[in-house]
Formats: sequence, C-alpha cells, structure tokens
Amino acid sequence: MTTVQAATFELLRAKGLTTIFGNPGSNELHFLKGFPSDFRYVLGLHEGVVLGMADGFAQATRSPAFVNLHAAAGTGNAMGALTNAIATHSPLVVTAGQQVRTTMGYEPMLTNVDAPSLPRPLVKWSYEPASAQDVPRALSQAIHMASLAPTGPVYVSIPYDDWGEQAADQNELLNARRVSNRTLLPADEIESIVARLKAARNPVLVVGTDVDAAAAQRFAANLAEKQAMSVWIAPRPARLGFPTTHPNFRGVLPTGMASISRILSEHDLVLVVGAPVFRYHQYEPGLIIADGTELIHITCDPAEAARAPVGDAYVADIALTLEAIAEKATQTDRPAPPRRPKPAPAARSSEPAVHPEQVFDILAEVAPRDAIYVDESTSTTNELWDRLPMEEPGSYYFPGAGGLGFGIPVALGVQLACPDRRVIGVIGDGSANFSITGLWTAAQEDIPAIFVIMKNGTYGALRWFANVLQAQDVPGLDVPGIDFCALANAYGVKAASVSTPEDFRSVLKQALEQKKPMLIEVTTSIN
Amino acid sequence: MTTVQAATFELLRAKGLTTIFGNPGSNELHFLKGFPSDFRYVLGLHEGVVLGMADGFAQATRSPAFVNLHAAAGTGNAMGALTNAIATHSPLVVTAGQQVRTTMGYEPMLTNVDAPSLPRPLVKWSYEPASAQDVPRALSQAIHMASLAPTGPVYVSIPYDDWGEQAADQNELLNARRVSNRTLLPADEIESIVARLKAARNPVLVVGTDVDAAAAQRFAANLAEKQAMSVWIAPRPARLGFPTTHPNFRGVLPTGMASISRILSEHDLVLVVGAPVFRYHQYEPGLIIADGTELIHITCDPAEAARAPVGDAYVADIALTLEAIAEKATQTDRPAPPRRPKPAPAARSSEPAVHPEQVFDILAEVAPRDAIYVDESTSTTNELWDRLPMEEPGSYYFPGAGGLGFGIPVALGVQLACPDRRVIGVIGDGSANFSITGLWTAAQEDIPAIFVIMKNGTYGALRWFANVLQAQDVPGLDVPGIDFCALANAYGVKAASVSTPEDFRSVLKQALEQKKPMLIEVTTSIN
Repeated sequence: MTTVQAATFELLRAKGLTTIFGNPGSNELHFLKGFPSDFRYVLGLHEGVVLGMADGFAQATRSPAFVNLHAAAGTGNAMGALTNAIATHSPLVVTAGQQVRTTMGYEPMLTNVDAPSLPRPLVKWSYEPASAQDVPRALSQAIHMASLAPTGPVYVSIPYDDWGEQAADQNELLNARRVSNRTLLPADEIESIVARLKAARNPVLVVGTDVDAAAAQRFAANLAEKQAMSVWIAPRPARLGFPTTHPNFRGVLPTGMASISRILSEHDLVLVVGAPVFRYHQYEPGLIIADGTELIHITCDPAEAARAPVGDAYVADIALTLEAIAEKATQTDRPAPPRRPKPAPAARSSEPAVHPEQVFDILAEVAPRDAIYVDESTSTTNELWDRLPMEEPGSYYFPGAGGLGFGIPVALGVQLACPDRRVIGVIGDGSANFSITGLWTAAQEDIPAIFVIMKNGTYGALRWFANVLQAQDVPGLDVPGIDFCALANAYGVKAASVSTPEDFRSVLKQALEQKKPMLIEVTTSIN
Repeated sequence: MTTVQAATFELLRAKGLTTIFGNPGSNELHFLKGFPSDFRYVLGLHEGVVLGMADGFAQATRSPAFVNLHAAAGTGNAMGALTNAIATHSPLVVTAGQQVRTTMGYEPMLTNVDAPSLPRPLVKWSYEPASAQDVPRALSQAIHMASLAPTGPVYVSIPYDDWGEQAADQNELLNARRVSNRTLLPADEIESIVARLKAARNPVLVVGTDVDAAAAQRFAANLAEKQAMSVWIAPRPARLGFPTTHPNFRGVLPTGMASISRILSEHDLVLVVGAPVFRYHQYEPGLIIADGTELIHITCDPAEAARAPVGDAYVADIALTLEAIAEKATQTDRPAPPRRPKPAPAARSSEPAVHPEQVFDILAEVAPRDAIYVDESTSTTNELWDRLPMEEPGSYYFPGAGGLGFGIPVALGVQLACPDRRVIGVIGDGSANFSITGLWTAAQEDIPAIFVIMKNGTYGALRWFANVLQAQDVPGLDVPGIDFCALANAYGVKAASVSTPEDFRSVLKQALEQKKPMLIEVTTSIN
C-alpha cells in the first residue's frame, strides 16, 4: 500500500522540493515521521524565521520552496513574513497540519478553524482537501499555483490522520506533470513597443523587482545600450533589477508621486518592466506623470497591470518579452545617457561611531564582487544603493512589504541557496529583533552568512518619517540597551562589536576569511 | 476644531483604555504624535509580544485592552498570538495604521490590502471606516464588540491621514454610551437546573476558563459545597476556574474523549460551566459521554453551545447564572465527594538537573500564596496543576490555542495589571524563543515578573506526542545550545542558571525579594 505520506514525498522529490523549512507541532508529526534521508529539514525557532528562510531560498533559487507550519498558531506567526512574500511574488508552498478529520468539528486544541481563510489575503490560493486521497493532488496544485505567473505564496491545511491513509491510484501522473503559463507577446505587439521606443525623443527604462526574479538584467542592459536609455530602478526595489555598475544606471527612483513624475518628465516615453506603476511610499501629492510623457508597462502580474493609473500595460513573461524587445530594437544614434554622479566621499561620524556611508564604502572595498546583500536597514537604503557595486542577478533582497523580521532569515535562505557566494545581511538594530532567533538556525546549520547590525539605538526610518510628517512627541521610537553580540553568542554565533571604520574593516575581513556565520554589531551614527 | 485624533483620545479616556500596547510604523505616527501624558505606551520589539502583553493585561483586568500595530506586516506578526486571544475570549481592540486614503488604490508600500480580511477568522469583528469622520464611532463600536459576550478580539484599520481631519459632531455621545448583553436565565430555567442537580444521584461540576474570566469561582465553590459535587477543571484550562486547594477539587480533566467520558461515567449529571464541551486535544476515540449520564452546559459563547455534540446548553452570563444556581440550590445530604489524592513525593533527577516536580514543589513552598502563574511549559502542565496551590481568581494563564510565544509577554501584561501580586512565568525552553524579545520590555518598563525557563533542550510536549503517535525519526524536535541567561542579559534582565533544587530555591528567594524582572534558567530533566 502506498500511503498519502509516501505519495507526497514522491511528489516533492519529483518537483525538486527536498528542503523543508519548518517548526513542527503535534499535527505535523505524522507527515514528518520516518523523514527521508534525501530530504533536508531546516528548523526555525519561530515561524517568522521559517517563512523568511523559505522566502530567501525561493527567491534565490527562482523556484518554489516548501514550508511546514503548525496549525493556526504557527501559520499566524508566519503571517508578517507572508506580507513580504506576496509583495515579491515569492513562490512558497506553505502547508500546515490540521487536527484529525473526525474531530475538527469539536474544535479540539490545535484545530485550525476555517483554515483556508486564515492566510488570506496574503496568498494566491488557499485550500483544505476534503479527503485524504485528495492531499497529493492538492499539493501538486499548490506547487503549480505557486509557480504559475504571477508566482506567489499558497497555503494547504492537511488533517494529520490523512498521512497514514491509502493514496489514490495513479499519483505518478501528478509527479510527471508540467504546467506552464510562460508566454510571450505576439510579434505585432513587440514591434509596436519597439517602434514607439525608436520614435521617442528620449525614452527611459525603469526596471523592477521582477526583472531580477526573471534573471532578465542582461536583456534590459542590451535594450538600454541599443536605445541609449537611462535606466532607473523602480521605487522600493526588493531585488536587483539592473547592475549598479552599468554606465546607463541612474539610480533608484524615489517613492513620492511628485518626485517620480518630476524625474521622468524629461522623457517622452517611460518603459516600466517588472514593477508596479508605481510602488509609492511617502505621501507626496503631484502629477502621476508629466504632460507629454507616455508610459508602457510590462508586468507578470495582471493585478499590477489593472490597478495602475496610467500607461499601456502588457501582461507577459518578463524575460521572454524583454529579450524579444531588445533583440528587435536597433542601435539608436541618440547620444549616450548621462552617467550617474559619483557619490560624495563618505561622511565621517564625529562620535565614536561609524557613519553608514563608511559602512557601505568598506563593504564595497572588502566584500567579494559577487557578494549578496540582504538589506533590512531601511534608514540607510539610499546610501546602500549609492555605494555598493552590485552586478550579478540575485545580489540584493529587501522586504517587499516593508515587513520587519526579514533580514536574518532571508540571509540564511539565500545563503543556503547560493553556497558559492557570500551573503551579507545589513540589518537595523530595530529590525534585527523581529527575527533574532534566526541566529540559532545559522549556528545549528552552520550557514556562513554575515550579519552587519547597524546599531543606532532607534527606529531610524521612523524617526526620519516623524520629521517628514512633523510628528512630535511620538512614543516607542527608541530601542536602547541591546547587546547584539550577547544575543549572537547566546544562540551560538560568533560576534564582534565595532565603533570605528578601521575596526569594522578588520573584523569584516576576518568574517569573510572564515566559512562561519558571524554577527558584527556596528555602532553607527544617525543619518 | 476637534480632530479625529483628539476625539479618539477622549473616547479612549472615557472608556479607561489609557494603556496602549504597540510597535509603531510610519502609518501610526499621526495617531501617536503629541502623545497625551495621562496615557502609557508600552513598546514591544515584535508584535507577537505586543499582542501577548495586551492579552495578559485584558485577561487580568477583565476589560478591553488597546493595541496599535503597524499595517499588514505588523498585524501579520501578531496573528499567532491572536489565535490564543480568540480562544480565551480576550477582549482586545486591535488597531492598525493604513496608508493615506487617496493612495490606497495604488497599493503603496505599507498598504494593508483588503485590511478587514487580514485578521479573520481570528477576530469577532473587523472593519475599516469608509471616512475619517467614522473613525471615533468605529472605535466605539470596536470597544463594545470586544466587551459584549462572548468577549473577544476585534480589529480596526485606520488610514493615517484621518487623524488630522475634523471630527464629526456629538462624539461625546459615544463617550457616554453603555452597551451591555450581560443576561441571566429566566427563573424557571434556573429552577429546572437546580431541580435536575437535586434529583441527580451523583452530579459533578466541570468548570472552565470563562469561570475565571467572570471571577465566579466563589459561586462555583458555593454550589459544589451545597450539592457535594466533585469539581473538575475542564480540559486544557487557560485560566483558573476553581481553587486547587478546595476540598472538592478533583483535578484537571484529560484531553482525550475516551478518558473524559470514562472519568465522568460515575456521574449521572455533569454540569459544565464556562468551557466548551469539550476542548479535546489528544485523539482518543471513545464515547462522547457514558450511557446514562446527562449533561448541562452553561456558556457565554453561542458558538460553543451550538457546536457541542451533547447536552442541554444555556447561553448566559457565567457569574450571574452560577450565582443564581448556587443561591437556589439547597444543602444536600449526599456524602462529601472524595478528596483528591495528594501528589507523590517529587521525583529527583539522576542527572545534574532539577525534576519538574521539584520545580513546582519549590514554587509552592517559596512563592507567595497569591502568586500568579503564566504557564507555557506544555510538557509539565500536569505536574504544575498537581502541585501548585492556586486559590485567587486570576492566578493562572495558559495559551488557549496552544500558540507558542505566550509566556513572556502575557506574564508582563498580567504583571502590569496586577502590580500588587507577583507574576511567575513557567516557560519551556522551546516556547521561550517565540517571544524572547519580551525580556527587553521587562527591562525597559521595569516590570518585576520572574521567568522560570524549564530548560531540557527539546520540544518536550512534542517528544511526548511523538511517542504517543509512534512517530519515529521526526526532525526538528531538539533545541540545544541556547544560553537563556545571556539572552536575558543582552536585553537588560538579570538572570541566573541553576541545575540543583537547592540552587533553584535560593535563587527564587532572591528574585522574590527584589522588585525587578529576573530570569531563572533551570536545567530540568525530561519527564
């Protein structure tokens, strides 16, 4: 007899989902028992960490990651992290154990009451199979739903007595399936876009998070070079849509409506690829777009296309579409776009502290060229983009919904996915607490990520915002009295504290020489 | 002009909601700015901690507590803790900031997309006002919804530009309102229940969590004495429904269906008050109730009444109803029920470790008689109930949904509510990590709770369950290599580690002598 459990492990194996990120409870024991030796279980001490690790792993591998959580409480603990995952189209197959089918109506302890409703609206699809025999098929559906464009998180709740039941016949049909909605625009649409670019006086390219998800930077670069286009990164990037060292790179667009339309007003045509139009943040009323500027929008997400207030939108595969446009585009005789100004020399802190600009200059100098940065220091993100050379696809990750607790676990998940590159988390001291237990997993699994804690004793981005909003006398903005080295040591991770640029350089070099996780607490000045 | 913000603070003041538990983001700054000096803001470093503190405060004060979270990510982070709050009918008014009204359709960063759906199904009521002027009325509705029986958590999402808008007229009408559904059964129903008790050969009383929420233990004791009833605590108690030192107290019912009906089979009438019928946990098929046993169910929760598989259920106020039944009941001439057997002498650990039974015996010996216990050591809960004398209402708290991360923050919230009693958290080393940052709030707010960490290096309850389920080779059950004293110190809390009963007794005494938070890491043997 083939059990539902055995059929499920066969399916996961066939789909390459052999790493399971989880935190188990009693509802999950029947799924996990006799854990196959070709699978890996990565334990997190909090479900926010579990989901964050899976998010990093899924983004970095560009394929679905499997998560196993405990019932309603475990799912609930993961839902902050889920806000980031859905914003970045991360393909996560999130499962949770449910109580025994015949008892669910009594709502015993650990029942996930109305389970499919729980993770909404943060998942693409949510389901609880109505029979044990439907479990492998439901998980197959979940994997495909997560993988189909727009990719994203899905949820399946599974009663724990299902695992020992006899599986339905012909589950091998599931294992062999391919399901795809990877599509290209028809030739006439591609030609129309190319023609509009060619006819434009001064077109500009704006690339977003999903260009990195599609690993399509080289097509963006090819198009920008042929058409002499400046390239901006769309506001609040969650991934690296374009190499910051490319001559056409101009920087990251700001997050206010007025500023964005002002910057783009010198262009008569804006081509936005792989991003919403636009992901605003700061409230800054103004023009959506300047008079005389047209906008073309290429996105993998129908909802992004539909909700935008301007532009002709095309929903299609980012890589195929960008490649086709770049291939069809001819070499323009427009002059090359202006180069991005070099950043000013780093400011020095007057206190016994390192200025954030110095932190990034030292990272740029010391870290390997292909280092991967996980950024959860929201008050220093502009400085990071100004100063860090980032070239390879998959070199940058930022919380897509601004949800805190992202940095430590995502660094771990990315490092697991990319063992040959070095992952450096740049994490604010406010942010770091939200997933501090991730350090334990770093130690236990010996994941050699480096965590740079930017310690200024305050929620820096919030202080900045309070100034912008002229909000005085706000409680709860400061986070003094935390010893991050002690926290790291308590969870088994080596750590050092520095407050001068020289010490930071030297400790960073040591950390890079070892293949071990390490935390560096950097006392930083407030920007 | 009265702003929406000013009108809201007036409302909160009128309703006694002057403590705000929160973690702020940019959407919340306009609500919090110019924070009134008669309000207190209690900051948690993670929203699970924030919600847990509010849960403890609401339960211990028996009145609604106010929570302010950040948008979707902050709400998501709190949702694990919300599973416990809804299970224990905790009246929490959870609010979250939303992006600016005119921009929400663009889904800028920090938009809570489809906000009212997000916390469902874990709240009684969820709402986003459609205009700024509706905000104070919506919050008034939220406070009443949380407070009306069955009490429970509610959610309101508020666009941040609303706070500076002009309030509607006559908001003072809101401040003056009283809304109540505190109701008593009609006299004939009370008399019928009393008559059935009187006519029974051997009736038994089963009391649950909501008896403590109603502070109705004395009525339960009065009834039990008059009718010579044994008193059981309903399975998986989240609060102290009955004093463990009362002669009629028999213990806590187990969580399996077969065991419960077996224990109750010697009775011809079971009166269950303030609990579901029943809150099972362990799967143990059997009789719902023995042939010849009848069941009467008194609950504050219509859903509990409707879903139970047996019994005549009455939905009414627990305290009023129990008081009326106890008053009408006459003194029986049945013999007194048997006394609960004394627990065996505590086992001693053979390793350099303290046996959990010794931990509880020492607490019973050293801690004040009115100490409050917050229990999140799920593998030692039976031993706790066997050995700790708990008498006063509000002396015991346990996660109602089994959601981990409960112990540290709930201990803090209860201690804030009860400054004249001492709160002792008994917390497993697996559980403690889920809300470890709560220690920072303990230090910053100088909340003198004591945290006893039962350190055995494993998820003990899960190991026990894996044996019951014969689930071998399950990954992720152990949590070695954590130094809880270092964690406490890192967040500013004094700590000590002990591994003998003598050291535990002496350190506990020291902790009780100081009015400071303290963590005691106790190396315990595995049960």
